[in-house]
Amino acid sequence: MTEPSLFAPMSSTPEAAERTGRRAWVQAMLDFERALAAAQSSAGIVPAEAAAEIARCCRAELFDADSIAERAVSSATPVIALVRDLTGAVDPAARPHVHRGATSQDVVDTAAMLIARSVLDLVVADLAAAARECARLAEQHRDTVLIGRSLLQQALPTTFGCRAAGWLTALDDAATGLRRVRDQRLAVQLGGPAGTLSALGAGGARVVGLLAAELGLAEPVVPWHTDRSRVAELAGALGSAAGVLGKIALDVELHAQTEVGELTEGRSGGSSAMPHKQNPVSAVLVTAASKRVPGLVATLLSAMPQEYERAAGAWQSEWEPLTELLRVVAAAAATTRDLLAGLRVHPERMAANLELTGGLVMAEAAAGALMGALGRTEAQDLVAELCRCAVRRGTTLRAELLRDSRVRAVLSEQDVVAATEPADHLGSAREFVDRALSAHSGREYA
Amino acid sequence: MTEPSLFAPMSSTPEAAERTGRRAWVQAMLDFERALAAAQSSAGIVPAEAAAEIARCCRAELFDADSIAERAVSSATPVIALVRDLTGAVDPAARPHVHRGATSQDVVDTAAMLIARSVLDLVVADLAAAARECARLAEQHRDTVLIGRSLLQQALPTTFGCRAAGWLTALDDAATGLRRVRDQRLAVQLGGPAGTLSALGAGGARVVGLLAAELGLAEPVVPWHTDRSRVAELAGALGSAAGVLGKIALDVELHAQTEVGELTEGRSGGSSAMPHKQNPVSAVLVTAASKRVPGLVATLLSAMPQEYERAAGAWQSEWEPLTELLRVVAAAAATTRDLLAGLRVHPERMAANLELTGGLVMAEAAAGALMGALGRTEAQDLVAELCRCAVRRGTTLRAELLRDSRVRAVLSEQDVVAATEPADHLGSAREFVDRALSAHSGREYA
Amino acid sequence: MTEPSLFAPMSSTPEAAERTGRRAWVQAMLDFERALAAAQSSAGIVPAEAAAEIARCCRAELFDADSIAERAVSSATPVIALVRDLTGAVDPAARPHVHRGATSQDVVDTAAMLIARSVLDLVVADLAAAARECARLAEQHRDTVLIGRSLLQQALPTTFGCRAAGWLTALDDAATGLRRVRDQRLAVQLGGPAGTLSALGAGGARVVGLLAAELGLAEPVVPWHTDRSRVAELAGALGSAAGVLGKIALDVELHAQTEVGELTEGRSGGSSAMPHKQNPVSAVLVTAASKRVPGLVATLLSAMPQEYERAAGAWQSEWEPLTELLRVVAAAAATTRDLLAGLRVHPERMAANLELTGGLVMAEAAAGALMGALGRTEAQDLVAELCRCAVRRGTTLRAELLRDSRVRAVLSEQDVVAATEPADHLGSAREFVDRALSAHSGREYA
Amino acid sequence: MTEPSLFAPMSSTPEAAERTGRRAWVQAMLDFERALAAAQSSAGIVPAEAAAEIARCCRAELFDADSIAERAVSSATPVIALVRDLTGAVDPAARPHVHRGATSQDVVDTAAMLIARSVLDLVVADLAAAARECARLAEQHRDTVLIGRSLLQQALPTTFGCRAAGWLTALDDAATGLRRVRDQRLAVQLGGPAGTLSALGAGGARVVGLLAAELGLAEPVVPWHTDRSRVAELAGALGSAAGVLGKIALDVELHAQTEVGELTEGRSGGSSAMPHKQNPVSAVLVTAASKRVPGLVATLLSAMPQEYERAAGAWQSEWEPLTELLRVVAAAAATTRDLLAGLRVHPERMAANLELTGGLVMAEAAAGALMGALGRTEAQDLVAELCRCAVRRGTTLRAELLRDSRVRAVLSEQDVVAATEPADHLGSAREFVDRALSAHSGREYA
Repeated sequence: MTEPSLFAPMSSTPEAAERTGRRAWVQAMLDFERALAAAQSSAGIVPAEAAAEIARCCRAELFDADSIAERAVSSATPVIALVRDLTGAVDPAARPHVHRGATSQDVVDTAAMLIARSVLDLVVADLAAAARECARLAEQHRDTVLIGRSLLQQALPTTFGCRAAGWLTALDDAATGLRRVRDQRLAVQLGGPAGTLSALGAGGARVVGLLAAELGLAEPVVPWHTDRSRVAELAGALGSAAGVLGKIALDVELHAQTEVGELTEGRSGGSSAMPHKQNPVSAVLVTAASKRVPGLVATLLSAMPQEYERAAGAWQSEWEPLTELLRVVAAAAATTRDLLAGLRVHPERMAANLELTGGLVMAEAAAGALMGALGRTEAQDLVAELCRCAVRRGTTLRAELLRDSRVRAVLSEQDVVAATEPADHLGSAREFVDRALSAHSGREYA
Repeated sequence: MTEPSLFAPMSSTPEAAERTGRRAWVQAMLDFERALAAAQSSAGIVPAEAAAEIARCCRAELFDADSIAERAVSSATPVIALVRDLTGAVDPAARPHVHRGATSQDVVDTAAMLIARSVLDLVVADLAAAARECARLAEQHRDTVLIGRSLLQQALPTTFGCRAAGWLTALDDAATGLRRVRDQRLAVQLGGPAGTLSALGAGGARVVGLLAAELGLAEPVVPWHTDRSRVAELAGALGSAAGVLGKIALDVELHAQTEVGELTEGRSGGSSAMPHKQNPVSAVLVTAASKRVPGLVATLLSAMPQEYERAAGAWQSEWEPLTELLRVVAAAAATTRDLLAGLRVHPERMAANLELTGGLVMAEAAAGALMGALGRTEAQDLVAELCRCAVRRGTTLRAELLRDSRVRAVLSEQDVVAATEPADHLGSAREFVDRALSAHSGREYA
Repeated sequence: MTEPSLFAPMSSTPEAAERTGRRAWVQAMLDFERALAAAQSSAGIVPAEAAAEIARCCRAELFDADSIAERAVSSATPVIALVRDLTGAVDPAARPHVHRGATSQDVVDTAAMLIARSVLDLVVADLAAAARECARLAEQHRDTVLIGRSLLQQALPTTFGCRAAGWLTALDDAATGLRRVRDQRLAVQLGGPAGTLSALGAGGARVVGLLAAELGLAEPVVPWHTDRSRVAELAGALGSAAGVLGKIALDVELHAQTEVGELTEGRSGGSSAMPHKQNPVSAVLVTAASKRVPGLVATLLSAMPQEYERAAGAWQSEWEPLTELLRVVAAAAATTRDLLAGLRVHPERMAANLELTGGLVMAEAAAGALMGALGRTEAQDLVAELCRCAVRRGTTLRAELLRDSRVRAVLSEQDVVAATEPADHLGSAREFVDRALSAHSGREYA
Repeated sequence: MTEPSLFAPMSSTPEAAERTGRRAWVQAMLDFERALAAAQSSAGIVPAEAAAEIARCCRAELFDADSIAERAVSSATPVIALVRDLTGAVDPAARPHVHRGATSQDVVDTAAMLIARSVLDLVVADLAAAARECARLAEQHRDTVLIGRSLLQQALPTTFGCRAAGWLTALDDAATGLRRVRDQRLAVQLGGPAGTLSALGAGGARVVGLLAAELGLAEPVVPWHTDRSRVAELAGALGSAAGVLGKIALDVELHAQTEVGELTEGRSGGSSAMPHKQNPVSAVLVTAASKRVPGLVATLLSAMPQEYERAAGAWQSEWEPLTELLRVVAAAAATTRDLLAGLRVHPERMAANLELTGGLVMAEAAAGALMGALGRTEAQDLVAELCRCAVRRGTTLRAELLRDSRVRAVLSEQDVVAATEPADHLGSAREFVDRALSAHSGREYA
C-alpha cells in the first residue's frame, strides 16, 4: 500500500493533512453525491426517500478509501469505484437514484472545490492571525530604528515597524485575494458526460442551482468541465500568498544571521555540537514550502487547455498538484503565524548594526543639510570626500563633519548631530505604519 | 547591438510589441519622473516651473533608448542612465528637482504598472471581441448538433453552440479577472531608497497619493517595493487568460483535423506540395504562445521572496519575463479574436461524425427509454447486447432496437426513432447557451 | 496522521511506491549510517565490533518511521530523530560511533542517491522493456502504411513501423541518459557540518572513498552539499524521459480517437452507458504523470542556489519534489511498457484514413512524376489544378490524373497508378526502421 | 517593427546577443540550405554547379531578416519566406535544387542546433575561465580560515579555499555536461514532411550522414522531428549550469553583505547618496539571469509531447525560450567569469567574523579534546555549560575552558588553546582543495 511521504509532516500541518487526505477526498465526493440527490429531490426528479437513504450512506467511514484509491487505476478516476460502493450500500430502491445524470468529472471537480474551501478556511484564518502579529510588531516597533538594506547592502535607516507594516499589508492582500476566490469562484460542477445534463431532460439546469445551494458553493453560468479558470485562479491566489509568506521567512532568516542578529525565532534552538546556533527552523520550513509553489502553479496552468468535453490527461494531472498546493500553502501560513507570534526582536543589535559603517549610511541626510548653503552638487561632493576620510581614518562621518571647517562654516555642532542622527531621518516611516494599521483594522476576515 | 528575436512577430502583435518595446519602457519611466515632479509641485516641494520644465523633457523621442539600455549593465538598472540624461536635458534650475527623493525601484516598478495597464487595455479589448464572436457562434449554432467527446472518444451529443458558450463564459471570466487587476491592483510605487521617503521629510507620504492621481494608478497603503503581490496577481490573471485561449486553440486544432473536419480557420491555407492541408495556423500560434505562459508565471512567482528593502537579483529577474508575458498573452488574445471571427463551421461534418459509431453514442438515451418498462439494469444490459450486435453486424443501434422483439414489446417504431435521435437528447444544451449569452450581455467591458 | 493521497495509486506503481515510501527513506538513511560505520571501521576510526553492532540495528523494521517523520518538524530534518533512535538501539559501547563526524545533510543526500538508484533501476528496466515492444512493433509494421500528419493535418504517407522506430530511438536515448546519471553521477555525500569532515581529522577524506565503495555509489571529488548538480542532472534526465513517454501517450490518444481509430489500448474498455468508448486509460495516466514533470524539474532547478555550507530552505524544498518526480516517472515508464505490450494496431483503419482526402496526399508524388517532362513549376501547377478538380467533383486525384490529357501525354495508366500509390512513396521509411532496430540491438541495458 | 527589450543588455553579452539574434538565425537556416545542397551534390542528387550557386547565396547579409521575421506570421514558420527569398536569389538553373526534399522543421531544428553549438562554445569557454579563477582562489586561500555557515548561522570553521574548491568542482561538472551535449547530442535534423525523406527516394537516408558531416553535427539514428530529447537534454544541461552559477552569485552576495564584508566585487561601486554601498552588481545580474532558467527549462520540457510527425504549437513554442535560455546562461557564465576574476577577498574580515561568537563555534572541537578523559556525554555537557557561561559573562569559550578546574585537570593551557584554534580544526579542508585542483587540471576543455 502507498505510504505517506517521510517528509509530509514538515510540509503540512495536522489540520491541512486531514483536510486534504484520502478520507477527506472520499467524504467530499460523497458530499457531492448526497447533495446531488437532495437537489434532485427538491427538483422533483428523485424521491425524497431515496435522497434520504443516499444521505444516510454518504459518510466516508462507511467506505474503504484505500480500496477506492487502488481501484481508480483501471479507469483513471476514483469515481467509478466510489459510485459502485455507494450504490451497493444504499437500499435497492434508492439505487437508480445514485449519481443520477452525473459524470466522474462532476464528482471530482465539485469535491476539489469543497476540499479547497475547507483548506482556504484554514489559510485565511492563519493569514489573518499572522497579520495580527505583524500589526502588533508594527505598533510595538514603530520607533525601533533599523538599517534598511538594498541588494543586501546597508542603505538608509528605516524602522522595524515599517518593515512589519510591509509584511502586514502583504498578508492582508493575500488573505483578501484568497477570500475572494473562496467566496466567489469556488463553484459546483454539474454537466453530465457531455456537459449538457442529457440524462436530466430539459429542466436539468435547475438542478445546478439547487446543488450549489446545498453545498454552499457558487452556481456557474454553464458547466465548467473544460474551463479551468477556477482552478487557475485558486492556484494563482495561493501562489501570491506563498510568495508573501516566503518573503517574510527570507527576511527572518537574513535578520537572524549570526552576523546580523536582529531577530531570532522563539522556537529556534542550538545543537549540543554547535551551541551558538539559533537555527531559524520555522523560516526554513516556510521557505522550503514556498519554493515548491511556483512549480505547482505552473503545472496547474499548463493543464488548462483541455480537449473538447473532457481532457485525456491534463485534467487528471491536476489532482495531486492541487492537493499538494493547498497543503504546502496551509503549512506555510500556519508556520508563519507561529513564527511571528514567537519572534524575538533585538533592538540593541539593530542599533549596533546602524553604527557599522561609521555613520556613512547618513551621507544622504548630511548632504541634505548642507545643500541649502552649498548647492546640491557641492554638498554631495563634500560629503563624499568626508566619507572617504572617515573610512581611511577609521572615524565616523559625524566626526569628520564636525572637524571640517567648510562644514562648520554653515552648520553648528547641533546641526551636525541632528543631520547624522538616524532616528531623525525616517521620512514617512511612522506614517506608513499608521496607514498599514488603519487599513488592517478595516479588513474583514471570516 | 541587440537585435529582436527572429520569432518575435509570431508571438506578438505590432501594437503589443510597441507597448512593451524599448521606447515604451523609456517613456513609462519618463512618465513616472514627470508625474513625480508634478505631484511634488502640487505638494509644494518642487517649484511649478521646475515641474513644467521636467514635463517638457519627459518625452522618449528626446532620449537614446539604446544607450540607456547599454549603460544599464554597469549598475543593474536602467534608471541611473535615464536620470542622468534627463537631468542633463532640463534647464539647470530644474535639475535639483529631477527624480527627487525617488529610487530606481520606484521608477521601474511604476513604469511596469504603466506598461501593464497599456497592454491590459489591448488584452481586455481583444478578449471582449473574442467573447462577442463566441456569443455570435453560440447563437448561430444553438441547434447545431455535435458529438461531445471525452478522453478524445466520442461520448454523447451536444451542440456547437454549447461548446461556444463554454468558450464565451471562460473568455468573459478571463476579461473580468484582468480588468479587476488593471483597475484595482496596478498601483504607483514610491518609497525612496529604504521605503521611507526619507528625502521628503515627514509629509512625503502625501506625494504618493498625488502621484497616483497624476498617473491614474491606484495608491498603495504602503510602498510595495518588496511586496510583489501586485506583480504576482497580474501574472496569475494573465496565466488564467492564456489557459482559456489555449483551450479554444486546442479545440480548434482538434476539430480541424483532417479526420474530424468540423472547423477550419478562415486564414488557413494549403501548400503547393500538400494542397489538401488546411493548417490551423492561428490556433498553432495561440497554442505556442500559451504554452510559454506557465513558465513565465512561475518565474515571476519564484521572484516574490525579495530581501529586506530591495532584492539582489529576484527583482531584476522580473523585468523581461513580465514584458514577455504581457506580449505573448496580448498576441494570443488578438490572434484568438481573429481566429474566432473567421472560423468556418461545418455542420455537415458534425452530422456525419455523429453517425460514425452507428448510433452507439445514443446507447444511454436508448437505455433511458427502456428503463421505465424494464428497470434500469435490465434496460442497460439489453442495450449493451444490441450495441454489440450492431458492431458485429455492421448495422446501427437503431436498426437493432427496431428488430429486437423485447424492445418492440415496449417501444413503438416512433419511440425507437425518438430515443436514438441525437437532437432530441441535448439536455440543457440550449438553456446553457441562453445562460451564457445572458451573462455575457450583462458584463461590462472597458 | 498523514494519509497518502487518494490519487497516489494512479501516479505510481506498487514497486515505485515502495521504493520511495516512508520506510524506504528510513532504510536508505540507515544504510548510510551502517556503511559509514563500516567505512570508518575499515579506516581504523571505529572498532569493528561497533560497526557490526550498528549494522545489526540498521534495519528499518526496528524503527518507527511515522514517529521519525513527525519529530522531523521541530528541526526541519528527519536525521536528528533517526540518529537518536539508532543511538538508543545500539549497545552502549557502540553509541559514540553512531553517525560519527557526519551531519544531517550527509545522511539525507546520500539516502536520496540510494533511493534514486533504486527507482532508476525500475525506470531503466521499464524503458528497456518499452523499447523492446517498440522494436517489435517497428518490425511487424515495417510495411504498414499510415498517413503522416503535421499540425494535426494529413500530410504524406509514412509507415507505422517508422513511427514506432521514432518512439524506439527516443526510449533508447532516455534509458541511456538515465543509466549515465545512475552509474556516474549518483555519489555519496560526506562532509560533516561544514564540509570539512572536521571531526575525522586530517585523514577523514579517505572515509569518503570507503563509504562510496560500501554503498556502490560514486566517490565525489569534494563534498557536494551545496553543489546540487547531481540532483539537477537526475531531474533533467527524468524530465527528458517523461517527455518521451508523454509523446508516445499523446500519439496513442490521437490514434485512438473515434474518428481516427488506428490504435486501441489492450486494456481500454467501454462503460455501460457509452459502450462505443475505447478509453485510452493507460495513455491518459501517462499523460497525466508526464504533465507534472516540468514543474517538478523546475522546482529542483530553482533550489540549486544554496547558501554557504547548507541552505536555509532550498535544500529542504528538494525532498518531496524529488520523491514525487521519481515516483511519477516510474509510473509513466511502467504504464507505457504495458500500454505498448498490449497495443492493438488497426492497419485497415490506417488504410482507410489514407483514402480520406481522395488521394490528395499523393500530390507531391504525382508532381514528382510529371516534373521530368513538364518542369517543376508546371508540374506542380497542373497537379494543384487537378487536386481542386478532385475536391470539386468528389473524385480522387488518381482519377483526375488518368482523365487529364496533359498528364496522359507523358504518363501511362500504370505510371499514374504508381505515382499515386502510397506504398511506393515511403522514401527511407524502411531504412529508418532498420537503423533504429540496429541501434537498439547495440544498446546495453542493465 | 519589433524592438529589442530595454533589459536585454543586462541579460546577455554582446557575443551571445549576436549569436542568438535575428541575423544569426537567418544565417543558421542558410547554413542548413547550403549544406543540404552540398550533401545532395555529394550524393549525386543535385548538380555540383547548383550546390555551388546555392552556397554563393547562403549569406545572411543578402537577406532581409526583418522581412522574413514579419512574413513568418502567416505560416507560423520563417522557413517559407526564407526559401522563397533564397530561391529567388539563385540562378534559375539552381532553383529546383533549393531546399530539396526538406521541410520547415528540418531547417529550424538544424539551425537551432547550430545556434546552440555556437553559444555553447562561449558558455563552455566562460565556465572554463571561471573554473580557472576558482582554482586560483582555492590555491591562494587554501589556508584562509573562514567560518562555515549552515541555515545562515555560523557553524564550524572551514577555509575560503575549500569554498572555492566547491565552486570549482561544480563549474567543472557544468562545463563537462555542456560539452557532452554539444559534442554528442547536437545533431542534424532531416526527414522531409513526414520524416521519411519521401522526395529523395530510397537512398535518401545517405544524405543525412553527408549533411551531418558538412555541418559538423552528429548524425541521428532516425529523424528526430517529434523526439525532443536533444532539446530537453540541452535545456537540462543549461539548467544545471545556471544553478551552479546562481549558487556562486548567491554566496558572493551573502559574503558581500555590509555585516559580513568578506568579499567584494572588483566592479562594485557606491552611489553619491550612499557612498558606503558596495553593490554586488555582477552577482545581482547572475542571480537575475539564473532565476529565469527553471521556468525556461520547464517550458521546453512541457513542449516535448509533440503530435504525430509535427506538433501544432508545442514545437513552435520552443523557439524563443530556447533562444532566451542560451542567451541568459551565456550572460551568467560570462559575468561570473569576470566577477571571479575581479573578486576581492578580505581575510581580515573572515578572521574577525570567526571571533563573533566568542569561540563558541569551537565547541565541537573542545568537546573532542575532553572526550578521551571524560567520555563523550560528559565532555559535551561540560562544554555546553561553559558555552552558556561565556555567553552570560561576555567572555570566550577559551577563557571559560582555561578557568574551569574540571577542564584544567585534564587539559594544559596549550591543549586548551590548541582545541579552540580554528586553523587547527579544518579536517580535510586542505585535502579537498588538492583533490579539486587535481581533478580540475585533468579536465579537458575545448
